Amino acid sequence: MDKISVGDTGVTAFAPATIGNISCGFDLLGMAVNEPGDYVKVNLNYDRKINIIRIDGDNGKLPLDVDKNTAGIVVKSLKKHLQKGRGLDIILKKDLPICSGMGSSAASAVAALVAANQIYGNKLTKEELIPFALQAEAKVSGSVHGDNALPCLLGGIILITNYKPKLTYVSIPAPKKVWVTLVHPDFEISTAMARGLIPETLEMKKVIRQNACIAGFVAGCYSNNLELIKDGLKDYIAEPKRSKLIKSFPQMKMAVEKIGGFNLGISGSGPSVFSFTADKNVATKVGRTIQKFFYQNKISCQIYISRINKEGAKVVKADGVNVM
Amino acid sequence: MDKISVGDTGVTAFAPATIGNISCGFDLLGMAVNEPGDYVKVNLNYDRKINIIRIDGDNGKLPLDVDKNTAGIVVKSLKKHLQKGRGLDIILKKDLPICSGMGSSAASAVAALVAANQIYGNKLTKEELIPFALQAEAKVSGSVHGDNALPCLLGGIILITNYKPKLTYVSIPAPKKVWVTLVHPDFEISTAMARGLIPETLEMKKVIRQNACIAGFVAGCYSNNLELIKDGLKDYIAEPKRSKLIKSFPQMKMAVEKIGGFNLGISGSGPSVFSFTADKNVATKVGRTIQKFFYQNKISCQIYISRINKEGAKVVKADGVNVM
Repeated sequence: MDKISVGDTGVTAFAPATIGNISCGFDLLGMAVNEPGDYVKVNLNYDRKINIIRIDGDNGKLPLDVDKNTAGIVVKSLKKHLQKGRGLDIILKKDLPICSGMGSSAASAVAALVAANQIYGNKLTKEELIPFALQAEAKVSGSVHGDNALPCLLGGIILITNYKPKLTYVSIPAPKKVWVTLVHPDFEISTAMARGLIPETLEMKKVIRQNACIAGFVAGCYSNNLELIKDGLKDYIAEPKRSKLIKSFPQMKMAVEKIGGFNLGISGSGPSVFSFTADKNVATKVGRTIQKFFYQNKISCQIYISRINKEGAKVVKADGVNVM
Repeated sequence: MDKISVGDTGVTAFAPATIGNISCGFDLLGMAVNEPGDYVKVNLNYDRKINIIRIDGDNGKLPLDVDKNTAGIVVKSLKKHLQKGRGLDIILKKDLPICSGMGSSAASAVAALVAANQIYGNKLTKEELIPFALQAEAKVSGSVHGDNALPCLLGGIILITNYKPKLTYVSIPAPKKVWVTLVHPDFEISTAMARGLIPETLEMKKVIRQNACIAGFVAGCYSNNLELIKDGLKDYIAEPKRSKLIKSFPQMKMAVEKIGGFNLGISGSGPSVFSFTADKNVATKVGRTIQKFFYQNKISCQIYISRINKEGAKVVKADGVNVM
């Protein structure tokens, strides 16, 4: 945060990476991890406009145009909704890689929303901020999927129970003993392309297996039963197709499960992969194992070991004072 | 139980009716209700054989042959397993209609197992009795589906999480406030025929909806959230096809939901239908509403209003002493 925080006033918020689908809940489940995440700093300015004045960490890939960047879109909508006169200058520090399957666009939007809401007097609850985040994602990606934005904002594990006629969701208790290994390999998969791989129908046997898995996973989270969770972490919908975009995925999966990883799954639409374990050392070993496979394929990667994030996006600095 | 209990020694067990699928969990969810149920009485005899000496309430439809009746099959297997010399005389009192979708064959098997296990010295736990019940069902129906036998034996709501390589399951907390209306119309649907109606594939949109429903239902049961439960009670797999076998089903469903029933679903493979409500009076009104539709179609029916049964099959009389 050095680049942002030195000598600053304004409000800085953090929004965590999220793992969409969690293997068993395609388009329905999502969860937040403690790290990495995006930081957004907002400062009141003296014109009436929203400006994105700088983006760090995106290698110039993201638009500074407020109408094309989720961070800009949400802040503009929020300003209008709250009928505020003064504009905001936004600095975005992207620790989340783009097109990584880690909820990067949702995190920018959510961090910007939380920071802007705070500087505008904290008028809205997190629940009230949800529609702004979803609208921004829809505007950028063309479709609304809350499995990143909701856990990013609220933390924990979120189950979306309906998309229509309106979005409904429930927070599922995060199992206490779980460690999450999240590995980001340095290549991109476009969400639209990954979505195009999903078959239009599914064999009934697999439908029933998938139903059993998501139901068992949810039961395992409520009862803190790691065996049920482990058993439920299976994906008959997206993984069979999308895993082909990740070299050595089947071998990687076998190796991870052999050393105690509950699973190897694709985070969101990939290419990041994740695994649950019950032990931090095993989580680290799982990360190294995945890394080894990527290296063999000449792909560099970043490993993140984290608990499930329970609080979601939050203000981390206000007027130069850390509030973490 | 008059016909059985007068002047008797022996052991009598009760096994409850069960609702397979519970709309959102095709082949995975099942639950027990307090009534109706089957009663099985066993008496030690002086030969080495298992005999079914009488069946009441089946209108002569069920076989007295111990190798063709689930009650006989399980008791014979149990006797062999326990290496018992003395045989048993079995009297079966069927309060559950046959081919009704209420787990009739499972209830006979389970009541017989629980009674026989008791008279043979209570050597096995309920969990240990499960394989006997499943084998008997498989022998009679040609396939193993635990969604009746498991809740019948154990009570409550059961989620089957795996069929292969071995059957695994978890008990889901029964929501406290729920009343169940179960209505049996006087016609039969063969399980095999109903199974033949299930399509071989499902559209992905419906797969995702079904996943959301079963996951939301399970979350609702754990958190005692009736809105989630209500929202989850939807069936995109079997109901669209099987409901065509039940005259006026769509109209009935609409009427039931209008007066406060959470849903109208098909119990197992039908033709019995069920609904959840949060109020006993509403549960009764729901029953009357369903009855009205069946009457209009010149079909008589029986209505059962019950809580979710939490204890499953049990011994109700031993050596002339009630143990209820």
